[in-house]
Amino acid sequence: MRALVLDAEWNPRPDYELTDDEKARKRAMNSSQVWQHPELRVEEVERPKPADDEVLVKVRYAGICGSDVSMIETDDDGYMHYSAYTKFPSITGHEFSGEVVETGDDADLFEVGEPVTAEVTDYCGRCQMCRQGFHGHCENFEQIGFTMDGAFAEYVTVPEKILWSVSSLEQAYDTEDELYRAAATIEPSTISFYGLFGRADGIWPGDYHVYHGVGPIGLTGMNVSRAAGAGKVIAFEPSDERREIANELGFEHVYNPIEVDPVAKIAELTDDEGADVHVETSGAVSATYPVIENSLAEQANVVHISNAGSNPDITLRKFQGSSAQLYGSEGHTGQQVYPRTIRLMATGKLDNLPIITSTFELESADEAIKQAAKRVDGKVLIKVD
Amino acid sequence: MRALVLDAEWNPRPDYELTDDEKARKRAMNSSQVWQHPELRVEEVERPKPADDEVLVKVRYAGICGSDVSMIETDDDGYMHYSAYTKFPSITGHEFSGEVVETGDDADLFEVGEPVTAEVTDYCGRCQMCRQGFHGHCENFEQIGFTMDGAFAEYVTVPEKILWSVSSLEQAYDTEDELYRAAATIEPSTISFYGLFGRADGIWPGDYHVYHGVGPIGLTGMNVSRAAGAGKVIAFEPSDERREIANELGFEHVYNPIEVDPVAKIAELTDDEGADVHVETSGAVSATYPVIENSLAEQANVVHISNAGSNPDITLRKFQGSSAQLYGSEGHTGQQVYPRTIRLMATGKLDNLPIITSTFELESADEAIKQAAKRVDGKVLIKVD
Amino acid sequence: MRALVLDAEWNPRPDYELTDDEKARKRAMNSSQVWQHPELRVEEVERPKPADDEVLVKVRYAGICGSDVSMIETDDDGYMHYSAYTKFPSITGHEFSGEVVETGDDADLFEVGEPVTAEVTDYCGRCQMCRQGFHGHCENFEQIGFTMDGAFAEYVTVPEKILWSVSSLEQAYDTEDELYRAAATIEPSTISFYGLFGRADGIWPGDYHVYHGVGPIGLTGMNVSRAAGAGKVIAFEPSDERREIANELGFEHVYNPIEVDPVAKIAELTDDEGADVHVETSGAVSATYPVIENSLAEQANVVHISNAGSNPDITLRKFQGSSAQLYGSEGHTGQQVYPRTIRLMATGKLDNLPIITSTFELESADEAIKQAAKRVDGKVLIKVD
Amino acid sequence: MRALVLDAEWNPRPDYELTDDEKARKRAMNSSQVWQHPELRVEEVERPKPADDEVLVKVRYAGICGSDVSMIETDDDGYMHYSAYTKFPSITGHEFSGEVVETGDDADLFEVGEPVTAEVTDYCGRCQMCRQGFHGHCENFEQIGFTMDGAFAEYVTVPEKILWSVSSLEQAYDTEDELYRAAATIEPSTISFYGLFGRADGIWPGDYHVYHGVGPIGLTGMNVSRAAGAGKVIAFEPSDERREIANELGFEHVYNPIEVDPVAKIAELTDDEGADVHVETSGAVSATYPVIENSLAEQANVVHISNAGSNPDITLRKFQGSSAQLYGSEGHTGQQVYPRTIRLMATGKLDNLPIITSTFELESADEAIKQAAKRVDGKVLIKVD
Repeated sequence: MRALVLDAEWNPRPDYELTDDEKARKRAMNSSQVWQHPELRVEEVERPKPADDEVLVKVRYAGICGSDVSMIETDDDGYMHYSAYTKFPSITGHEFSGEVVETGDDADLFEVGEPVTAEVTDYCGRCQMCRQGFHGHCENFEQIGFTMDGAFAEYVTVPEKILWSVSSLEQAYDTEDELYRAAATIEPSTISFYGLFGRADGIWPGDYHVYHGVGPIGLTGMNVSRAAGAGKVIAFEPSDERREIANELGFEHVYNPIEVDPVAKIAELTDDEGADVHVETSGAVSATYPVIENSLAEQANVVHISNAGSNPDITLRKFQGSSAQLYGSEGHTGQQVYPRTIRLMATGKLDNLPIITSTFELESADEAIKQAAKRVDGKVLIKVD
Repeated sequence: MRALVLDAEWNPRPDYELTDDEKARKRAMNSSQVWQHPELRVEEVERPKPADDEVLVKVRYAGICGSDVSMIETDDDGYMHYSAYTKFPSITGHEFSGEVVETGDDADLFEVGEPVTAEVTDYCGRCQMCRQGFHGHCENFEQIGFTMDGAFAEYVTVPEKILWSVSSLEQAYDTEDELYRAAATIEPSTISFYGLFGRADGIWPGDYHVYHGVGPIGLTGMNVSRAAGAGKVIAFEPSDERREIANELGFEHVYNPIEVDPVAKIAELTDDEGADVHVETSGAVSATYPVIENSLAEQANVVHISNAGSNPDITLRKFQGSSAQLYGSEGHTGQQVYPRTIRLMATGKLDNLPIITSTFELESADEAIKQAAKRVDGKVLIKVD
Repeated sequence: MRALVLDAEWNPRPDYELTDDEKARKRAMNSSQVWQHPELRVEEVERPKPADDEVLVKVRYAGICGSDVSMIETDDDGYMHYSAYTKFPSITGHEFSGEVVETGDDADLFEVGEPVTAEVTDYCGRCQMCRQGFHGHCENFEQIGFTMDGAFAEYVTVPEKILWSVSSLEQAYDTEDELYRAAATIEPSTISFYGLFGRADGIWPGDYHVYHGVGPIGLTGMNVSRAAGAGKVIAFEPSDERREIANELGFEHVYNPIEVDPVAKIAELTDDEGADVHVETSGAVSATYPVIENSLAEQANVVHISNAGSNPDITLRKFQGSSAQLYGSEGHTGQQVYPRTIRLMATGKLDNLPIITSTFELESADEAIKQAAKRVDGKVLIKVD
Repeated sequence: MRALVLDAEWNPRPDYELTDDEKARKRAMNSSQVWQHPELRVEEVERPKPADDEVLVKVRYAGICGSDVSMIETDDDGYMHYSAYTKFPSITGHEFSGEVVETGDDADLFEVGEPVTAEVTDYCGRCQMCRQGFHGHCENFEQIGFTMDGAFAEYVTVPEKILWSVSSLEQAYDTEDELYRAAATIEPSTISFYGLFGRADGIWPGDYHVYHGVGPIGLTGMNVSRAAGAGKVIAFEPSDERREIANELGFEHVYNPIEVDPVAKIAELTDDEGADVHVETSGAVSATYPVIENSLAEQANVVHISNAGSNPDITLRKFQGSSAQLYGSEGHTGQQVYPRTIRLMATGKLDNLPIITSTFELESADEAIKQAAKRVDGKVLIKVD
């Protein structure tokens, strides 16, 4: 089958101490210290076979995530930006939709032909984290598109327990093509859904939500907030292109934080009550936290989702004066985040199709990643025929 | 000014023991044991003056509640059905919108001309319930339209602390008339909002909600559920007229429980997962609880709102087998229920205008109540010019 | 090895329709409809070998649960009382402590010699319940001592993922014997811990707790409530012996509900505020719910744990008038219930040793169960040398 | 009556812009910008009369709080350190116990002779904060001992709605003197109680708690944590005297963070799981947050209570990697914090008497404050005869 393979050289930086496990398995826990000169190639590879507890999925659409981009971007010494867990060569891509074509001998929850999407993280179900219900932080986790072959390919195998049916999206979409395009945006939507409803506590319909950063995560998040009954969805983003996409999605309160004072604007739009929910999706935390701290509604929830470029000074006094709280949040696996996000999409209220601004064929998958690296799109998809 | 006055005779039933307070103040804690031969009259009464902490409101629209109806309905001995706290004669009506026309000497939160609505229950802020934050169960409560003169009149005085501005509804409604009509339906909407978000815990966007009973509380509740991101809103109601109103509101899953097996229908619509949220708004609990118990999703929330006509047998085993919980809920005051419901309405997603099926002039207010007593409407309003 | 084996005859009642799965695997989903003439024998059986993901535990102490008793009690036709999932012949017993003696090839979380206890329910980790985090209601569950060989034996094999170390109990107990006796009472303690903290929400230190029924579950529950900072622990129990055990544990507010009016007593002890927490552990729900409903504090949590003998009438009006809620709760698996209960026991505050009122040798294990059937003990243990 | 009066000069710093309200009422919103040369005098003042909604309390014991100290400590220009809301001259002191001696005409909840304590903050019950249930952040708040005459005096008047009976402490203390001494420590205990149970969410019995800073707030907090069932209470404090007090209270895990590496020690004591609860009570946040961030258990709750001396860099990545959250918390009023803290003290488990290390007569009240300024005591009390 055709696939986009990412390869890189295993050249640990001189001052980086490899763990025994890293040495033994050639998997880097901190990729930016180990992998040099990453290279993308669309090439022919063998079609995988599902293990007993796996399902073979024919990929229909796969989205480009910021992490896919940061695996090909490098520093001056040629080391990749991405800093988490990977092995190479491998097929990347973890945001996808597809159709079940074969099921493993012990996998009986899905039928051939069923449209599906998948969670990213596979967990062991046995370690101290898993047995306490923290599957997202499994001590033995592996990830589709990072340490397991991913979805920028014609086929991908997925452990049955992290696969989810999306056939209910037929309620919201008229064509199969729309259904599969929408389904490929479920994974990024779950990031915010989990931050808002799995991590934060007490977010009510009618709350005012502010997004700091309108990239793919911010856009799908804004869509989740609106579908979940936010009183207002306000956003700040310096990129003209991305503000424009947000406007086309129907969001009217989207501003350039360089031109408009965000604190004053939030005060104006919230009648001086402040924002009940702040979602940090920009990474530019030295700029955004001063805004957040000065526009906290009483009992405000601050959900931190982005990879922060630095460690911001936090004015604790402000969090005390507003009885506010700050939640660290990231990608997640298990529990009800996927099924509820899928149901919300099935209502038609969480429609991410307008966020998709570029689509490439699998044969040009490397071009798709380079397009995403321009950081002007909503979501870039790869279409697999 | 013109007003609809309800009067009745203070004839305690022979076997009812009046409390000292009831004797002293001629206010009945259990009205159905005390008040006989209720009578409605539209008549001229003196326009009230706001006390220092009150605001005088010119009423624009006032809705008829089931309790207004039950104060004129009587048993064979002529005693009124309504069984809670009242004094008579008084002006009834507690669901309303209006315009501030005068503010008391210590009331400075509202401006003349501001469109407003009000909570029903005034609380002392001092008793053991209030000081613990349970204002809805204040030991010294009084209620607009029950023990304080209400809104079926040209003017009503309201303690400032239970008055809320609705000027933000301008975002959702183009005309002042629409705004005031919508605002008169806020109070019934808060009943379900409080049950779902103030009482129950852990309702997520995408959850499946089932309403048992589609009267005014059920209809506004279904609207709240949909605006808050319910995955599906399903309802059961024997009245053809009321199912029809629900259909016109855009709800597609509304069934006659006499013709359709509710348990099977819920299973079908939820893909056998059951309902995450059950809202009991019918009072016919001997019929609805068997349905509820047999269609509980794992960790289902059952919100009981209605005045139950009897005490149902509860199959506790079913609540254990599904890790489900049952919340008693009723009208509420204080906290964030009103402001969040108002904000949700301001988004345009919680639009109750199609629920209003009959409108009467104040001069025919007694007719309005008789129309509501037919129990075929969505909401009956009185328009006050 | 020596073991207490329970056998019974597979004689489905004429009117009971076996499922295909029941027929195929000879495991009864409703044991009381299938198993006749149960019989206990202490006999020699083969010592089990741990599978790859299992651990072999040398049992030290095992407690008798009400379900162990109900598997030997029968109706007039000789059918067992126990109504849930079993297969026979098998070794029963699921409340136990022991020492790791061998680990399977893929089991590396425990060391030989480590003192341990186990959860009862093994789950698949893959079905729709498990993947949503509801391991306690796994669609493919099996249970130690019910469908898997249990702990009334010298050795028992346990899937590693439901085994927990209890070595931290050394902080609370001076001798190994005490440690193992205490550890055998962890499982029943988790029933109430889960009900109070895993199911109910918002129980605060200082809350008043009332237990309705002082058997082994009630006693361990009262101990959990006290260790967790309850303001008062009040209990009602008709058995003189069991009230006496509660008194010896240091509980001063324990009453015979036949002699003392529970509603009046609760009012007196709570200064008329009512109980914040009611725990139903008696099963005599037609007697206890009227008490519960009339002694609800504002926002009271009612935790229903027992096997109710009938379906009580519930006065919903009372739950509305007190903003109270009712939680169905039962045994549980996964999440943090076991580790937190173990930690609480390690502090020395949750000491169940005084609850153990009878201890038998394994060779007399059948006598132990008959003693438990008298329902006068706190907890009956079997000691395995 | 005799009273400790604090006076200071109203000399706003040249660059501080007074608000209109500050000018009109001579009450400083930021005291450190306005009040110069504070001075303490024990002197004769007129005994106050309770207003209609107030109660007159004969003070028995009053504790010295850090804020009392910071009102007499000054910078090089003679401006007081305390930076919040005050007016002078006034009687300070807000942590106290006493006996009701007279009740206002509308105050009927307390009886003469009843032992009581009080919340610090009086609230209006009417503003946007109060009506939403946020009484602690009332827009029109006043505070006993800051803007209202306080408790370093023979008598103090208290609005009835913030007064609480402590007669239940008779269950825990044999003598009236002990009862009143204990009751004077309720207010500081509520600071941590509110942080742990009113602000943070999901703290379970058995959780591991770490206190960073063992002053009066840390000590009473550790006592609350232990009484509430913490699995372990661990603390770090550089002062030898204060570690000694904690040891005498029975806390065994108390360390000097200069001598012992806190991260390693927490890892050791928690078996590498990390702390479930961190309470920041030191203010030395640049030292404590690096410790906190590196010893977060999964889903850890960080409760920030202290007046931070600076704004720490927060490594958001750590909060994401552990699904942890940070709550701003401070003093609180209303809801159930006082009654539950009092009930916990009534059980005997929350015993603060050993924390009281110095007691002064009212006539030497100024000496008491100077003693507290040495920051070596647990709690310094003033005894009023």
